[in-house]
Order: sequence, then structure tokens, then C-alpha cells
Amino acid sequence: MPGTPDDLLARVASRPEAIRDLGPDDLADLAAAVRREIIRTVDRNGGHLASSLGAADLVVALHHVFDPFTDRIIFDVGHQAYAHKILAARPPGFRTLRLQDGVSGFPRISESPADAFGTGHSSTSISAALGCALARDLRGGGERAIAVIGDGALTGGMALEALNHAGGLRTDILVVFNDNRMSISPNVGAISQYLSLKLTTPEHVLLREKVKGTLNRIMPQRGKRVIRRLQEAEEALKGFLVSPRSFMAAWGFKYLGPIDGHSLPRLVAALRQVKLLRRPVFLHVLTTKGKGYAPAEDDPLSFHGLGGKKAAADAPRAGRPAPAAGAAPGEAADKPEAAAPAQAGAGPRAPARHAAAAPPRTYTEAFGRFMTARGRSDPLLCAITAAMSQGTGLTDFFREFPERSFDVGIAEQHAVTLSAGLAAAGMRPVCAVYSTFLQRAFDQLFHDVALQGLPVVFAVDRAGLVGEDGPTHHGSLDLSYLRLLPGFAVMAPKDACELAELMDLALSLPGPAAVRWPRGASPQRPDPPPPHTPPALGKAELMREGGDLTVVAVGDCAWPAHEAARSLAADGISCGVINARFVKPLDEQLILSEALRTGRVLTVEDNSLAGGLYGAVAELLAAKAPGRVTAACLGLPDSPVPHGPQSWQRSLAGLDAEGIMRRALSLLKGDEVPA
Amino acid sequence: MPGTPDDLLARVASRPEAIRDLGPDDLADLAAAVRREIIRTVDRNGGHLASSLGAADLVVALHHVFDPFTDRIIFDVGHQAYAHKILAARPPGFRTLRLQDGVSGFPRISESPADAFGTGHSSTSISAALGCALARDLRGGGERAIAVIGDGALTGGMALEALNHAGGLRTDILVVFNDNRMSISPNVGAISQYLSLKLTTPEHVLLREKVKGTLNRIMPQRGKRVIRRLQEAEEALKGFLVSPRSFMAAWGFKYLGPIDGHSLPRLVAALRQVKLLRRPVFLHVLTTKGKGYAPAEDDPLSFHGLGGKKAAADAPRAGRPAPAAGAAPGEAADKPEAAAPAQAGAGPRAPARHAAAAPPRTYTEAFGRFMTARGRSDPLLCAITAAMSQGTGLTDFFREFPERSFDVGIAEQHAVTLSAGLAAAGMRPVCAVYSTFLQRAFDQLFHDVALQGLPVVFAVDRAGLVGEDGPTHHGSLDLSYLRLLPGFAVMAPKDACELAELMDLALSLPGPAAVRWPRGASPQRPDPPPPHTPPALGKAELMREGGDLTVVAVGDCAWPAHEAARSLAADGISCGVINARFVKPLDEQLILSEALRTGRVLTVEDNSLAGGLYGAVAELLAAKAPGRVTAACLGLPDSPVPHGPQSWQRSLAGLDAEGIMRRALSLLKGDEVPA
Repeated sequence: MPGTPDDLLARVASRPEAIRDLGPDDLADLAAAVRREIIRTVDRNGGHLASSLGAADLVVALHHVFDPFTDRIIFDVGHQAYAHKILAARPPGFRTLRLQDGVSGFPRISESPADAFGTGHSSTSISAALGCALARDLRGGGERAIAVIGDGALTGGMALEALNHAGGLRTDILVVFNDNRMSISPNVGAISQYLSLKLTTPEHVLLREKVKGTLNRIMPQRGKRVIRRLQEAEEALKGFLVSPRSFMAAWGFKYLGPIDGHSLPRLVAALRQVKLLRRPVFLHVLTTKGKGYAPAEDDPLSFHGLGGKKAAADAPRAGRPAPAAGAAPGEAADKPEAAAPAQAGAGPRAPARHAAAAPPRTYTEAFGRFMTARGRSDPLLCAITAAMSQGTGLTDFFREFPERSFDVGIAEQHAVTLSAGLAAAGMRPVCAVYSTFLQRAFDQLFHDVALQGLPVVFAVDRAGLVGEDGPTHHGSLDLSYLRLLPGFAVMAPKDACELAELMDLALSLPGPAAVRWPRGASPQRPDPPPPHTPPALGKAELMREGGDLTVVAVGDCAWPAHEAARSLAADGISCGVINARFVKPLDEQLILSEALRTGRVLTVEDNSLAGGLYGAVAELLAAKAPGRVTAACLGLPDSPVPHGPQSWQRSLAGLDAEGIMRRALSLLKGDEVPA
Repeated sequence: MPGTPDDLLARVASRPEAIRDLGPDDLADLAAAVRREIIRTVDRNGGHLASSLGAADLVVALHHVFDPFTDRIIFDVGHQAYAHKILAARPPGFRTLRLQDGVSGFPRISESPADAFGTGHSSTSISAALGCALARDLRGGGERAIAVIGDGALTGGMALEALNHAGGLRTDILVVFNDNRMSISPNVGAISQYLSLKLTTPEHVLLREKVKGTLNRIMPQRGKRVIRRLQEAEEALKGFLVSPRSFMAAWGFKYLGPIDGHSLPRLVAALRQVKLLRRPVFLHVLTTKGKGYAPAEDDPLSFHGLGGKKAAADAPRAGRPAPAAGAAPGEAADKPEAAAPAQAGAGPRAPARHAAAAPPRTYTEAFGRFMTARGRSDPLLCAITAAMSQGTGLTDFFREFPERSFDVGIAEQHAVTLSAGLAAAGMRPVCAVYSTFLQRAFDQLFHDVALQGLPVVFAVDRAGLVGEDGPTHHGSLDLSYLRLLPGFAVMAPKDACELAELMDLALSLPGPAAVRWPRGASPQRPDPPPPHTPPALGKAELMREGGDLTVVAVGDCAWPAHEAARSLAADGISCGVINARFVKPLDEQLILSEALRTGRVLTVEDNSLAGGLYGAVAELLAAKAPGRVTAACLGLPDSPVPHGPQSWQRSLAGLDAEGIMRRALSLLKGDEVPA
């Protein structure tokens, strides 16, 4: 049944088992069609292009040799699973990728039986695959458990924990190491260097010379010939010594590879070989990020994560008309990235790009500018990040202060305790992490920073709702879990301009602090702006006085609350607005006095309704204002907010001006109070 | 200046630099005196005997070669730091170890300038030491950064993250690997096996035979002699191939050792050699747990952690008379332990020890019995733990069901996601972890379990206040952080009998659940007991009706609340008591109706006052009972509760019957309400 590659793809998508009978040429055609589909869709909808293209051949080979519906293939992080989503087709179709009501950007159990385990955060796949393998062993099943993991994700501690455990158990598990040698810069991560075959040990060279010397001494005539023979043996030995084989053997894994991850015949042959083995196997596959799309191959970092340039204009949406895309066009890559060429050599002291330019457009940009400026006046200031120097806005700082810049790779736990160590030894560390990834280091925040009261400042980006990346990536819990940490100051700026003020305040404190802000564009201040109060520890800002009710809003929600209050004023309702600034320590005095004065409080936060701003205010009111104040709240529900445009997500949670106004009106009408 | 070893110790304790001038014999005497001091003190006060004794020689050598007050020596976990605490003496003296107002059982920055970094949780030391090293490099200092880490702690992911980063950086850092080959059972952890020199690879044997064959072929006469020479070379090669040297070289570390960790001359020589190197060095030291104390050497597991058998009777307390010890005598070891001999071979199906015996005395015992009984009727039930099979009460389950028992070593992140994988593949996993260590896996709870709604049950031991282990070990946050997880049911039993009922309920749910309980003895029910309501999802238990106020208590606080209410009744006060059972989903209906009826609510929890039971009740009241209810709360403050007897800690937080009664009275008097 001949046809175009696209016909072939359509055939496989409608009957997935068809892929198992395809010959080499058809597989190559299929991979090409998959690539085109990825490029087409990501160009419209945004997403992770480079890693998806790099893994396309690998995924085609996996689907050809294994059965994705019975075998359990788990994609670490999930960026590289687009080909899998195309081949194991699922409604509403891959072209709805990342769109509201469309296919998720990450594997999801609920989306397809071929998605064995949901991912999104890094380094979980080996643990999950091992769980599937052990369950199979207990049930006596025959399916395979396969983790597909990149070189970046392998630096995550939990991946190493799982590798160690799996290797010790000697059960049947396959780890496919998708090595695109890009995620982590060469100077971050000894393992990465080692597995990339770059290591030659001086010990080995020395030993060789000794053996040569001995042979020449004991049999000068025949020495040369013996040495030649030995050199052959040595090649094997050397391969053994300096290759990853011995390293992985130490972990209890049989090492195979490295093989060309873009040669389908070789991939298929290797996977068929692996299929015969029933033990821990580590298959090393070399791939090129962006493979098959020249612009992405040339500049994989820029093409790592895309905001969906065309999505705003013309992308269809599953079910409903296209929304305006929430993400700023061309927004920086999300996860994981190559570290800036810092830290190893001392780069030239280049001037920061934006110094003293127009007001920052995004929070991230404001943070980057603050750090660069501050780095010039404060020689103790250090920046620590976990594979997110660009995403958190630290590119300029890393360039200008390489010796004070530490990208530890995907290793949030280590990043936090490393920061604590730097602080204990007298430096002033700022640890910049995405909100959702900081969850990985909750214990380190508590045990190493908070309990010791060490002055580490956490710059928490991507707080609140993140848009198309969806539930695994929302920073929906940070106000709640940061508030639990003894002695922490927990803050959020109302806009990008206030960010620098709060960072400045955070760095003036003797103990730990966290400042959190969302992804994307900052609200613009109204013209003329209302009076601005400079921040002080534990003090909120009364943005607007009101007599009928008080809105207490935090961070990015403050200006929408202000806008809502202005609209309400037009209807004759006097609504006060407090910019909380601090969730801990909470400005009990201001909030209590305003709440008692108006008798009604509405809290607004881009954080879970449990334990965050509402929690703090409710705890205050229950104890100190009984019988006086009616409270209501806006925030994120217990069930995850689905992926889609950030602006849509915010409106869904009622966090835009309109939602806040509606909620304020219902509070005034008394809808909140039960009978 | 001659004298007894004890005189020598007194001299060093009063002038720490004196240790640097001691000769080999004096060092040995000093180590002996330190050991005696450890044995004497732990025998009275409880503590970690076996690991402390095992590391005593190593610590003496470290203090002799390095300067603990300027060099930064960081003890992972901190169990092995007793000798350090004795040598770098600090008020109020080592003999107050773990006593109220006494010296902490773990290193603490605030206790001595020689305590470079506080520890307690595992696997943090390399990160912290690297932070100190990088700060030194930036400041241009000359001090050394030293992490002392055990073989158990090295399986923790963050230690591997840090090792990987440090090895890549090539800065001056010393990792002293204190290998007592006990913490982790041989089948857990490929790395542990490898570093213990137990590995021989078939590849290596094969290669040797090939080389022999070639030599015999090409020169049959001289073959034997050459082979003998080569065998010498091979020994070197073999050492290289199968020793940890090549493994650690892959991590970027220079490997030294293994050396006898009880030979002071060898230790001193090795440390002097290390002192000359300015790069990442991994010094492998072999020690024996319990060294120098025969009973502990013979049975290190039993002597790992001791509850202080004599403390209850006669131990002095710093400043004040001795309290009754809170810990149950002979209570199980706390951290880390040898895994039960499960999981590898299939042990005989031994009957559980306690089946159908007297009611369980401790929560832990009740859990252990429940699991063993349930394991017999439910073939899908699995138990997962992170080096805590004994501490969590799973010894019998591990013995009876080795194939369904998984001890992953110190690797909580992996334990949680492995459990999620098992659940995704159809098993019924129960993951048993201490509350404080579960913080390590907060992100995995969210990302891998909650977001996917997988039916994993978490058995959370050591919740609330833990006694002598102090701030690093309290389970003070679990109700707060577990409540943030979408779709989780979060429960706490009022006593050991109710524990089994809640576990049963948890295992009947289609989604994730956590049941948490404290260390130690369960409250005994009064005689005759009040009526008991069988648990149901999201339902609290009204233990006692009341008209003047309602106490809402959770878990272990319920019976003390009940006792307080009975005392109040004697004073004519009618105090209702609700056993919350669920913090999520909260029984809004019962709590609201009782609160509205009495107008006063007092919440009682052995958890942080932020975001836990009080947080949940306050959120409920603020929104749904405005103007009706005055609330007050008892729980753990934002500042850490100091180490000391558990009963004293509970009374300090007002969580005993007397404290609850006092607080109830002040609520009734209206002291809570501000003007």
C-alpha cells in the first residue's frame, strides 16, 4: 500500500500496530512525516521543538520494536514525547497541542493508554519505570518497562537514586539515555562529561607506560611484537576503562552504545538486542537537538521552548474559537537549557544590555536587571540556578560575573543547600528557581536554610499560573509552602517595578527570604499612578481606601484588584485595596484595621486557596476579629487548572479585574454567608 | 605533661589546639577517652552510639590534622559528630547531650564555631561543604571544606547531585567517605556494592583469558614468565578496574583509600597527604560501627539509636531537675538502619509476632500489625520504605512478604515515585516514611502522586514532636504540606487502635491518602471508653458534646482534649470535643454546626499553627461562619521547639490536657479577642 509519508503517518495513527510491520524505508518516511507534523504544530502552538525533533527517530524505533500500549514507555520531563503523541494518536489530535482543551504538552495517563506515566518535572522516569517493572514481576507479566531520559535529567538526584536502586535489584528495566549533549554545559556535571566519552585518566596512561617498560626489559627482541598485540588488548581495555561501560557496570547496568540516534536501522537493531535481555540495561543513544530542522539544529537553545508565535493570531482551538495567547511572543525557553558559558573561564566584563533603559516589560527582565546592577555594587552577591539561568533572567549576570554565577544543572535540592553553604560562609546568595521546581527542595528550604536562619534570598519565577505548560508547571503552592518555613519572609511584588524594591529589601534582611513573581508581562501602572509606598518588612501597601469592603491582593493580582475597585467606584461602591506584599510576616495591623472598618474582606491570590494568603488572613480573622468580618477568597482551586493561555487560566480562576469585581459584588450581596 | 587519658581529654577540651601537638600514643589514649565519654553519656541520655563510636578515631584524626574552628568540617546527618562535640567542647558540656537545655544531638551553628553547618537529615553535607569551598575561593581564604558522609547517606540523591557538581568544578573539597558497610543492606544500592569492592565483572575475566591465550600462542616458551609479569600488572589493572578509583574518577574526584578507619597513624598519614592536594578528593575510610564497645560491635543495629535507658531514672538535666523521659525505653532505632533481609531471597513465611495479642502499645506497633495482617489477605499490598523498615514497624511485613517489600535506602524522592509507579501498574503500595523525611519528597507527592490521583497510601510516622532528636526531626509541618496536595485524603488517628481503621479506610479509597501518627506510646482509652464511631471519608468524630465551647483536636491530641473536657466538666463548663480524623477533606458540616452552636472553637494539633488544622478551620469559619464564632488555637509555633523529652515538648506547646484546659478557659474568658 504505497502513498506519501503523510499517508503512512495517517495509517499508523489510525492503526498503531501497523508500525511493527514497516521496513526500513517506510520507517524513515514515517519519521520524516512525524518531524514535519511536529514543526508545523509547534510553529503554530508553541512548545518544545528541539528536543522533540531530536527524539523523533528514537520514538519511531521504540514504537516499531516495542508496543507502547502494553509496554510501559516513560518519557522523562516529557518534552521529547511529541512523536509518541503523534504515533499513539489521541483525541483531540496532535494539532491541538497545548491549546485550551487540546492535547497536553506532556504525557498524561488520562490522555492515552500509551502514556504510561505523566511527567513534566525532571528525573522521575527511572523511578516510575522501576515501579512498573516491579509490579510486572509481582504479577508475572511480560511487558517491558522503559525510561527515556536525557542527559540533563540524569543530573537530578532522584534519577541517580533510582538508577542505584534499579541496578541493585537486577530486574528487567531499560533506560534509554537520550544524550544530546546540550542540556548541561560541559563544566556542570562530572557524570555528563564521563558519559560523553571525554575522559582520559592520567592513571591509565601511567599504567600503560609501566607495562611497556616491563615488556621491553624482559624481552627486548620480541617486545615490539608483544606490545602490538597488547595494544590491541589495550584498546579493548581502554574502551573498558575510559568508556561509560565500566561506569554503568558499577551501577549494576549493562551498557550498550553509544549508537547514532538518527540511524533507524541501528536504533532498531539495538532495541531488538535489548529486547532479548532481561536485566537492567542502559542504552546510550546520541541525538542532535532540532534534528531535521536546520534553524533548530543551528540554534537549539532558542528553539528549545517556543511561545507559539502564531498562536495569538490564527491557531484553531479545540472546540472553541482561538483565544489571544497569554504567553509573550518569543518568551524565553522554559526547561532545561544550556548553562551560560560562565563559571569556568572568566568572560569579558560585558556591560548589561538593558541598563537604564525603558521600564522592564516582564518580571523576569526586571529581576535580571536588578541582579546585574546589584552585582556591580555588592561583591558578595552570588547567583545560583538549576539549569535556568536564561529562564530566570540571569544571562547578563552570568556573563558579567562568571565567578559568582553557579548553574548546578537540574539539581534543585543541591542548589538550595549550596546556597545555604555559601551564606554560612559569608556570601550573599540569590537562588533563582521556578516556583514549581522549588518544590523539589522543600526540605532543604526548611532544614538547611530556615532552621539555621541563613540569609539566602530565593527569586521564585513562574509563580502562579503558567499557561500552556499546564498543571505540572503551575507555581500554585509557593505562598503556602514558603509560609511554613520558620523565620522566612515571603513576598510578592505587584509589578515589575516593585520587584527590584522587594529584592532590595530581601537582601537587607539578616535571615532567609523569598520573592515570587509570575511568568510574562508585568501589569502597567495606570496613568496617573496612585501614590506608591516604599516597601518595609512586614508592611502592606494601602493602594486605595474604601468603606464598603477591602480587597487584599498579593503580587500580580494587586493591579487587577485596583482596576476592579475603580470599576466598582463607578457603580458607587467604595472598595479598598491592599497590596499585601508580605504573606509572611503578614501585616496584621493594616489588614485587621481595614477589615474591621469595612466588615468585608476579599483575598485575591494566584496561589492555592489552601494555606496561602487566604489561609493567613483567615487565621488572623478567626482569632482576632471574631464576629466582625465576613471573608471571601479568590485563588486556585484544589483541582489543577488545565493548560491553555495564561490569561484564560487567570480569568477561569477569577483573578482578572472582571472576576474580582464579580466576587466583590457577591460578597457585598451576602452570597458568601450560609443560612 | 603525663596523666590519664581522661586528663588528656580534659586538657584538649579546654585548649582544643593542644590536639595538634599530640603523638601517636596520646592520640590513641585520647580516642579511648572520647569513646568512654560517648558510652557513658549515651548510656544515660540515649543517642546514636554505634555510629559515634565508629567515627571516633576518624574525628580525632581530623581534629589533629585540620583546625575544626577555621576549617569547615560538616558531618552528614550528624550522628557521628559526638566525638567532635567532645573535642570542640561547648557549654553546657557533652554530658548534657540531648537533655532539655543541653547539648544538641546534632551539629548546630549556634552551638559552637566548630559546628560549620547544622545537619540532621541525610545527604546534605557535600552541598554545604561545596558552598563553603566556593565562598572561600571567592574570598581568597585558605580554609578547607570537608564533608564526612556515611555509606547510607551517599545513596541520597542530593549527595549525588553535589558530588557530580563538585567533581565538575575541580575546586578544593574533601569528601571523607565513612564506610561502615552497615547502613544499607547489600542488595540496596549498586554504588554501595561497588564502593565496597565486591564487584568483579565477567568482562574482566574474559579479557584476562584472551590475553593469556594470545601470549601462549605467540611465545609458548616464555609465555609463563610473561604471564607472571602481566599478572602483576593485572593486579594493578584489576585494582583499577574493579576498585572504586575509576568510579570516583568518573565523578571528577581523586580517590584515596580504602584505609583502616581505626588506625590513627594511617588516618593521620592519609589526611596529611590529602592536605597537600587542592582538588576534589574522596577519601575512603573503613570503620566498624560500635568500635570499642563489644555489645555494640556485635549488634550495631540495636545500638544504632538508643532512647536513653537511664535517662528516666537518674540523668541530670542542664539547669533543672531530671524530667521523666518521653521516649519509650528501648524504642526502635531512628536513622538509618540496615534493611531487613528481605527483597532478595524469599524468606520463610514466618508468622507475625504479635498477631491477636494485647492492644498495641505504640502507633508504630499498630501499623506493623495492620500491615502484616493485611498483607495476608491482599496480595496486591506492597510496602515501600526509605531505610526505615524497622523504625516504621515493618520488620514483620518485610520478613513475611519479602517479594512485596522494598527498602530503597535513603532515597525518599525515589521511594515516593517508585510507589506511584507501582500504583500506576496496579499494585497497592503503602509508603512508610517519617514525617520529617517525607519533606524530601514534597514535589514527588504533588507531581507524581497527587496530579495523577494514584492510589498510594502514605504511612507517616514520627509526626508532631519527636523528643530528644529535636528541631531537625520534628514532624511539624505534615498536616500543612499534605493539605496542599490536590485530591489527597489526610488523616490522623486518635490512638493506636484507630490507626488500623484509618489505614483500612485509606486503602479503600481510589486516590492518594496519608495517615500520620507520632512517635511512641499511644494514649490509652479511658475506662469505660466513650462510644466510638467507625471512620468514614471526610467525617469527624464527635467524642463529646458540649455547650460552651468546641475543641477540634487532631490525632494524638484528641484524648488529651477529651481529658481536658472532663476536667472542665468538673468545673461546670460544658466543652465539646471533636476528633477531626481528617484535615482534608475537613468535616465542614460537623465542625461548622458545633462551632455555630457553641460560638467558640479551639483547635489542637501537633503541627505548625500555619496552614494545618487551625488553618483549615479558620478558612472555613472566615468564609462560612462570619460574625458567629470566636476561634483560638494550640499547635507548634513558627520557631522550632527545642530538643528534650517529648512530654515536655508537648506541654511546652500546650498540647497536654492541662494546656488544653488552660487555653479553653482563656477562650471562655474572652482573652482571645482584641479590643
